[in-house]
Amino acid sequence: MKSFGFAATDANEPLVPYTFERRAPRANDVVMEILYSGVCHSDLHMARNDWTWTVYPLVPGHEIVGRVIETGSAVTRYRIGDHVAVGCMVDSCQSCDQCRRGEEQLCREGNTGTYNAPDRITGDITRGGYSKHLVVREEFACRVPDGLDISRVAPLLCAGITTYSPLRTWNVGPGSRVGVIGLGGLGHMAVKLASAMGAVVTVLSRTSDKADDARALGADRLLISTDEQAMADAQSSFDLIIDTVPVKHDLDLYTPLLDVDGTLVIVGQVGPMNPFNSVPLLLGRRRVAGSPIGGIRETQEMLDFCARKNALPDVEMIRMDEINEAFERMERADVRYRFVIDMASLKAAG
Amino acid sequence: MKSFGFAATDANEPLVPYTFERRAPRANDVVMEILYSGVCHSDLHMARNDWTWTVYPLVPGHEIVGRVIETGSAVTRYRIGDHVAVGCMVDSCQSCDQCRRGEEQLCREGNTGTYNAPDRITGDITRGGYSKHLVVREEFACRVPDGLDISRVAPLLCAGITTYSPLRTWNVGPGSRVGVIGLGGLGHMAVKLASAMGAVVTVLSRTSDKADDARALGADRLLISTDEQAMADAQSSFDLIIDTVPVKHDLDLYTPLLDVDGTLVIVGQVGPMNPFNSVPLLLGRRRVAGSPIGGIRETQEMLDFCARKNALPDVEMIRMDEINEAFERMERADVRYRFVIDMASLKAAG
Repeated sequence: MKSFGFAATDANEPLVPYTFERRAPRANDVVMEILYSGVCHSDLHMARNDWTWTVYPLVPGHEIVGRVIETGSAVTRYRIGDHVAVGCMVDSCQSCDQCRRGEEQLCREGNTGTYNAPDRITGDITRGGYSKHLVVREEFACRVPDGLDISRVAPLLCAGITTYSPLRTWNVGPGSRVGVIGLGGLGHMAVKLASAMGAVVTVLSRTSDKADDARALGADRLLISTDEQAMADAQSSFDLIIDTVPVKHDLDLYTPLLDVDGTLVIVGQVGPMNPFNSVPLLLGRRRVAGSPIGGIRETQEMLDFCARKNALPDVEMIRMDEINEAFERMERADVRYRFVIDMASLKAAG
Repeated sequence: MKSFGFAATDANEPLVPYTFERRAPRANDVVMEILYSGVCHSDLHMARNDWTWTVYPLVPGHEIVGRVIETGSAVTRYRIGDHVAVGCMVDSCQSCDQCRRGEEQLCREGNTGTYNAPDRITGDITRGGYSKHLVVREEFACRVPDGLDISRVAPLLCAGITTYSPLRTWNVGPGSRVGVIGLGGLGHMAVKLASAMGAVVTVLSRTSDKADDARALGADRLLISTDEQAMADAQSSFDLIIDTVPVKHDLDLYTPLLDVDGTLVIVGQVGPMNPFNSVPLLLGRRRVAGSPIGGIRETQEMLDFCARKNALPDVEMIRMDEINEAFERMERADVRYRFVIDMASLKAAG
């Protein structure tokens, strides 16, 4: 089927209107009209080919909320008119141990990314949510719970699940002591979600500027990482630290803050990290881990949780034709806390 | 009480005979005549002041096996003639949460090292097992199970417990897939212990030289870390990797070998590590941790386990006056796999 959206055609060019073919829906596919599309920092990395594997033209977008407008003959979960959401993956092998236990993000064959990945059947490169339609197998669509402000749901599909999943993996609950490093798209969701789970939440920041923001998001306090005395006093006081910093950085400042058996989970930086010292790990049996998005079942659980708790991202709504400016602002960290594209604006732009 | 042993008097001098005072036994102390003393690489680091906090004269030794020759009035656990063993610590606060759950190694106030640490009551610097006697509170002495070859027990008190504890913390049992990096004092015990627990054990080595040794110790196979194809084939195939390498090194070679949720535990290097890449951690929710010795209860459990399984270190027995040569050989990794000093040789030397 014919669709249209915005695409990057080269690492150095702005995104431009782009018309392309979506596959004809298969028996187990739903066709969505996309209503909102979140803007993730990885969209920018991919558009600029920062990770060297971008295939152009690239239609980014993996925080997708829409409405079902067509269903394949074998679809059982969704009906026309349902609000559904799609995140970072649109397929996986469905048969390995990880897929069978609902962790498709860890599929042994690798999951299929929502954009810039070969379709498992045709090999065609997938295209993401900066577009009018999405065709996706029903197993990779989640239901948007009733009662949620649908214009703010999209960022949950990446920023939300990426922070929700480690909070669940490491058993955060009432009274858990959770630290959050970085207060961007991921960090602000980590604060909201951990707080909604009943955790005592501390935002770690280099300056005191973000104290009011942190509290407004639900944090109990701000710990200023350049305050040596405050950092010394905070040693061994966290069960879990969610590290959302998206660039190469140093962990030695943070690992001593973990209590015995505590874990620092990297969810922001994808790539090289600075050298580290093993002593804080040894002395407190502390751990450093990474965590990638979450499985489909967990993503649905997260959406339901956010509906119950009314935990939604703070978003700034933009038009599709403002995407290049939004990318520039993201590079300056000038967003609170996530851009969402109102896809109703697409027709005008295209 | 008067005792004697061997001491380092300076970072650049060999160890020499040394006469000194042990404290008079307190009500809860036992006095041990030391029969065997293991030689740990940290003894060498401390003698050379590699970690900058050595207090001279230094009497090293924290792998200690002996016989009770005197008991304080309040001692209930041991009687004269009992064989007892002491490891890396001789005291802790005994009241914090960690001490109460038997993890004195993680005492909130810091445990008291067997040597080079201030006694919690007098402030006198503790002196270790390269000596004729030890005076120690009974809570920090473990019972040497009957039937063990007592001449080979000493290294269990550091090399043994340091590898046993993470195997237990990370629930190694029958069928667990355990990797061991480094085949020295710690590594060879990791192989023996994991194998005795029923794990499938792989030794990771840069060359094939150690294949026979690895198998003789109980490993199922050797994985050659310079063989790119073998390393690629081994991706995601370990539940736990025990990393005993005692110098700064790179983890990026090893983290991809961990299965989903698998952990690499650093037990060898105390200090800086090389930069690392977060991608293998993120993609497999993999973890890197550290682990320090173990608690007293766990140390006793380990001794009992080793007695049941007859899992004992391979040792080379030396005389006390051979210690300086032993240090030199350790620096060249020329030992299979642990030196033990027969303390009966001390009188002649002293």
